[in-house]
Amino acid sequence: MYNFKNDYSEGAHPNILHKLIETNLVQQLGYGEDEYAVQAKDILKQKLNRPEAQIYFLSGGTQTNLIAISSLLRVHEAVISAQTGHISANETGAIEATGHKVITMETKDGKLSPADLQKALQDYSLKPHVVKPRMVYISNATEIGSIYTKAELEQLSAYCSTHDLLLFLDGARLGHALMAENNDLTLSDIARLTDLFYIGATKNGALLGEALVFNKPALANDFDYVLKQKGAMLAKGRVLAIQFLELFKDDLYFSLAKHANSMAMKIAGAIKEKGYTFLTEPKTNQIFPILPKTLIAGLSERYLFYVWKEMDENQSAIRLITSWATDEHKVNEFIHDLIQFG
Amino acid sequence: MYNFKNDYSEGAHPNILHKLIETNLVQQLGYGEDEYAVQAKDILKQKLNRPEAQIYFLSGGTQTNLIAISSLLRVHEAVISAQTGHISANETGAIEATGHKVITMETKDGKLSPADLQKALQDYSLKPHVVKPRMVYISNATEIGSIYTKAELEQLSAYCSTHDLLLFLDGARLGHALMAENNDLTLSDIARLTDLFYIGATKNGALLGEALVFNKPALANDFDYVLKQKGAMLAKGRVLAIQFLELFKDDLYFSLAKHANSMAMKIAGAIKEKGYTFLTEPKTNQIFPILPKTLIAGLSERYLFYVWKEMDENQSAIRLITSWATDEHKVNEFIHDLIQFG
Amino acid sequence: MYNFKNDYSEGAHPNILHKLIETNLVQQLGYGEDEYAVQAKDILKQKLNRPEAQIYFLSGGTQTNLIAISSLLRVHEAVISAQTGHISANETGAIEATGHKVITMETKDGKLSPADLQKALQDYSLKPHVVKPRMVYISNATEIGSIYTKAELEQLSAYCSTHDLLLFLDGARLGHALMAENNDLTLSDIARLTDLFYIGATKNGALLGEALVFNKPALANDFDYVLKQKGAMLAKGRVLAIQFLELFKDDLYFSLAKHANSMAMKIAGAIKEKGYTFLTEPKTNQIFPILPKTLIAGLSERYLFYVWKEMDENQSAIRLITSWATDEHKVNEFIHDLIQFG
Amino acid sequence: MYNFKNDYSEGAHPNILHKLIETNLVQQLGYGEDEYAVQAKDILKQKLNRPEAQIYFLSGGTQTNLIAISSLLRVHEAVISAQTGHISANETGAIEATGHKVITMETKDGKLSPADLQKALQDYSLKPHVVKPRMVYISNATEIGSIYTKAELEQLSAYCSTHDLLLFLDGARLGHALMAENNDLTLSDIARLTDLFYIGATKNGALLGEALVFNKPALANDFDYVLKQKGAMLAKGRVLAIQFLELFKDDLYFSLAKHANSMAMKIAGAIKEKGYTFLTEPKTNQIFPILPKTLIAGLSERYLFYVWKEMDENQSAIRLITSWATDEHKVNEFIHDLIQFG
Repeated sequence: MYNFKNDYSEGAHPNILHKLIETNLVQQLGYGEDEYAVQAKDILKQKLNRPEAQIYFLSGGTQTNLIAISSLLRVHEAVISAQTGHISANETGAIEATGHKVITMETKDGKLSPADLQKALQDYSLKPHVVKPRMVYISNATEIGSIYTKAELEQLSAYCSTHDLLLFLDGARLGHALMAENNDLTLSDIARLTDLFYIGATKNGALLGEALVFNKPALANDFDYVLKQKGAMLAKGRVLAIQFLELFKDDLYFSLAKHANSMAMKIAGAIKEKGYTFLTEPKTNQIFPILPKTLIAGLSERYLFYVWKEMDENQSAIRLITSWATDEHKVNEFIHDLIQFG
Repeated sequence: MYNFKNDYSEGAHPNILHKLIETNLVQQLGYGEDEYAVQAKDILKQKLNRPEAQIYFLSGGTQTNLIAISSLLRVHEAVISAQTGHISANETGAIEATGHKVITMETKDGKLSPADLQKALQDYSLKPHVVKPRMVYISNATEIGSIYTKAELEQLSAYCSTHDLLLFLDGARLGHALMAENNDLTLSDIARLTDLFYIGATKNGALLGEALVFNKPALANDFDYVLKQKGAMLAKGRVLAIQFLELFKDDLYFSLAKHANSMAMKIAGAIKEKGYTFLTEPKTNQIFPILPKTLIAGLSERYLFYVWKEMDENQSAIRLITSWATDEHKVNEFIHDLIQFG
Repeated sequence: MYNFKNDYSEGAHPNILHKLIETNLVQQLGYGEDEYAVQAKDILKQKLNRPEAQIYFLSGGTQTNLIAISSLLRVHEAVISAQTGHISANETGAIEATGHKVITMETKDGKLSPADLQKALQDYSLKPHVVKPRMVYISNATEIGSIYTKAELEQLSAYCSTHDLLLFLDGARLGHALMAENNDLTLSDIARLTDLFYIGATKNGALLGEALVFNKPALANDFDYVLKQKGAMLAKGRVLAIQFLELFKDDLYFSLAKHANSMAMKIAGAIKEKGYTFLTEPKTNQIFPILPKTLIAGLSERYLFYVWKEMDENQSAIRLITSWATDEHKVNEFIHDLIQFG
Repeated sequence: MYNFKNDYSEGAHPNILHKLIETNLVQQLGYGEDEYAVQAKDILKQKLNRPEAQIYFLSGGTQTNLIAISSLLRVHEAVISAQTGHISANETGAIEATGHKVITMETKDGKLSPADLQKALQDYSLKPHVVKPRMVYISNATEIGSIYTKAELEQLSAYCSTHDLLLFLDGARLGHALMAENNDLTLSDIARLTDLFYIGATKNGALLGEALVFNKPALANDFDYVLKQKGAMLAKGRVLAIQFLELFKDDLYFSLAKHANSMAMKIAGAIKEKGYTFLTEPKTNQIFPILPKTLIAGLSERYLFYVWKEMDENQSAIRLITSWATDEHKVNEFIHDLIQFG
């Protein structure tokens, strides 16, 4: 059974493992004070074109979201998210567990617009009987595979600036977003247009690791305390730093994401050719084709994937995810099987 | 400069790195459902002689402490700790941040006794104007290098049982405790005498990882939710599982701890021979010799270590920590320099 | 300007004030141990037909909700509420501030049904990536004036029992619900069909006070600690106890609610006669007539009330609330003005 | 049995009850927007000589402490208190329940000095492994009856200013402190020398109520949200406002405290005359005489009071509290009995 369920079924890109071995016995300071962290942050700041950025390495997405958000909000402040947003749908109430309401907005494509924010501010205007919206959480790519255009992000950023809202971008799949075919955003655009964001590596070739970037250094004030308090500061910080050092020193991060996307696009193309449609337009490494249940049954004998949503009596949408490690032979086999069974 | 500051200055035992490489492209389920986790847990349960134990792998000690404690306490319940306990002294209020008071007791050796617990229950008896003590937190080895005897742990365990207190043992350096010269406890004693405990690997040869063991399965009820909520569930759970698989499949864990202890004992022996004393009797891989400040100044030009406590005008106690990776040549050099400068 | 904005514009029923004066210099124990508390609880338990019930007096509704809920949920557990529920719509994230997600369901009448609960359990079934629904929060009367029938509450209660859900009823306006014309529930039904509920007095003639009732005593275990911790235990508990003693010793509570309802029904009748409709069918002391904006403008020169919702270009729904203290002369004037302006 | 256990055994000063009756049917806005609140705040600001102060009325001391502290601290910040401080000793972990550590310092008289603060900052300097001290909590009068001099408070205030620490004064018994014989502080000194403080009324003649004063308005930013979220905003805010209106419009607050103090001093004088000593020098309405156990046994047949601390085999310290309502006849009887039994 080949696994298209997620983009974390394999270990890490070999470069990372080799670097771990190569540096293994070099003594380093603990708690993120190692020299690999210094190097990795320098490279990232250059790519972000933002020398003043403050960068921290964390272990996973839920951890990063809950620490970043709870570090910046006062007790009565809330964060606005799309209903499909990871903090709303998939994190076991991690944000609420830190004391903050997640205000959720229905969207059709997983993206928030200024109109959504305006509605949220309107819905939560009966001060002091409601929470105060203070942060906006978006994901790029979103949890359903869509991406923001530069124009969209600029509008959102402008709206946040003029309404005293912090803009936080979850980049668990940022590589895939930036490598998508019609994407017009760069890493430095992201840094310019958000207050803070993170660059996800767990889902793009690392053993573990997300790089949280505070574009405005004042927002990172005392952040190391919060990291430690929430159990996110690894004694051997080198383990995280080395992931980013290897992924960014030669832009490996981007080529890995590109591979993942191209594998997804190859499958999507074959599906389109067979005349099937999609729940949302395929853009990145997550695609949601709508297929006959008989075909799904056939494919599920050879491949692992999620059945996402029943569409009607005969069809369902499934979710297929490719990754940096997806084997093109398996993709070809999948397409072959799709044509056979379909 | 050779580093005796801590036991996490190097990476991991090579076996772990090799296993990561060997298994790298084997597809696995995420979130701790991988087959290495199954194998590692099976091995651990056997060594614990406790087939019903529930085991979870986490990334670090603070994380494990805060999640274990907050998972088991109701809002008004508190945990009792020695004042030197890690949750009291070194975790940035991690336990309080989950809403619970840490009741601290002064001890002379970092260990809690039934008399300490009795005093705590007495001090917190004015229901409902004070918190309700519900859990006891101990460390073995303690934060100042001492260890519990079997008799001591049995007495503590009995007291907890008869006073409705949960007993939680922090085993960040459990290997070092169990490999100490006069230790009479086994891993299965620990499992029998505590309600829950963890086996620390970060400080004994792993890249990262602590194995939290619920000896009574009912205490682990719904624990996976809490892990996820607090950001501790790694997508690639395999990374943690492989650390424990390699450390325990051939008792590597114990031989690494033994090496660390023997390096510390070698240094301690030389120090004693020179006529110096110790803040606490050397038992494990952390030792606290009291040395002339001039000698400390000399040594600190070639070695990294903490100056722990000023004793008087001329002397201070320092802390030296050895590890699985400590190079015996460097230990010999240190002893040589000690004799030269001392 | 006469105030129809809420049911807490005046002080308290005179009997309460007289009792405060009469007992003023009698020395009593503090923190809820006074003899008036004993008396008031005895009377309530009799009326509930539930001698084993555990009863506590708190100051307000938000306080009662947040303490009751946070006392009973583990960290990963959540409460299900109608979207219009007070804990969702009007309490500044009070529940989330204690660490728990509020799962909100859209309803058309402010009431939850077993079908709503089933959907919530379905939506939150992806353990452990989502919170675990553990409690159901309902209000009677609801925030939009509707009431539960006995059959509805029995079905909800049965569903909760078979799905390990605690049923909590917010009775901020319980008197008005029980005195509504077609109501078929009694106080003792409420006690039999819920796990816990509260009897609101602030909105029915008290200076302040809500009586939280745990129908199953085990749920009240250690509740006094939680009360104290959250700042809800008044030093002079007598102040709260006396409210309930006076309101319940001769069923004043029910006659006050009846007056409030009848004033609302009188207005509603006049509105219906004029041919206007309502957002929700008038049942209790909150009514939501849909009126021409010109009429609203006229009325708002003489009366205070909320404009609830714009219906179209020409009409809005307004909210009118009557209370134990509503003056029938003012009601008659309002009706007269309505006929004049309408 | 006459009660010397506390200063909240009786109801309220009659003026308050009369004002409640007099204003009972005047319609007012809810949630603290009533006209009595406006009047009471105006009077207080005048007495504080601080027109810019922001004032809020809450129900009790624990509630005020937990809301004030949690409103101002970031997640990793802590509050320093004397070990005898109410937030440390008597509030069921209320502060920790909001996520913040209480750093406790041993003192001999319940008061903090700059030297204590310096030690606390030193003890908590290992950033980021320890919490960050950010607020100082003191009580005046303290929990053991002592009071701050103006010089002491000025030194503390200066230290806090230069070390970025907020100074918060718990004035549960502020009236008694300001009316103590050797007191040299005024209400306006308190306002000038602290960042925020509260004026306690529950223990000085009110049914309930504490007035929290933010001397620097910026600290009160959004405070109404927090009040509502923590369940402290009474629907009938008038109940609280009227307490302060009556207590302060003619300085009743001060004369009530003076009476309480003078009753305590009368008892203390008689005790001294008999040759007994005190645990702490009697200053306010709480006194702690050290008496023979036989005498204590005799007195406890006629009076309620706490046995505070066993001194030796034959003697204990007891705590006697007088109040605004203490009957001088009973005081005389007590003194008579003391002389008889002693």
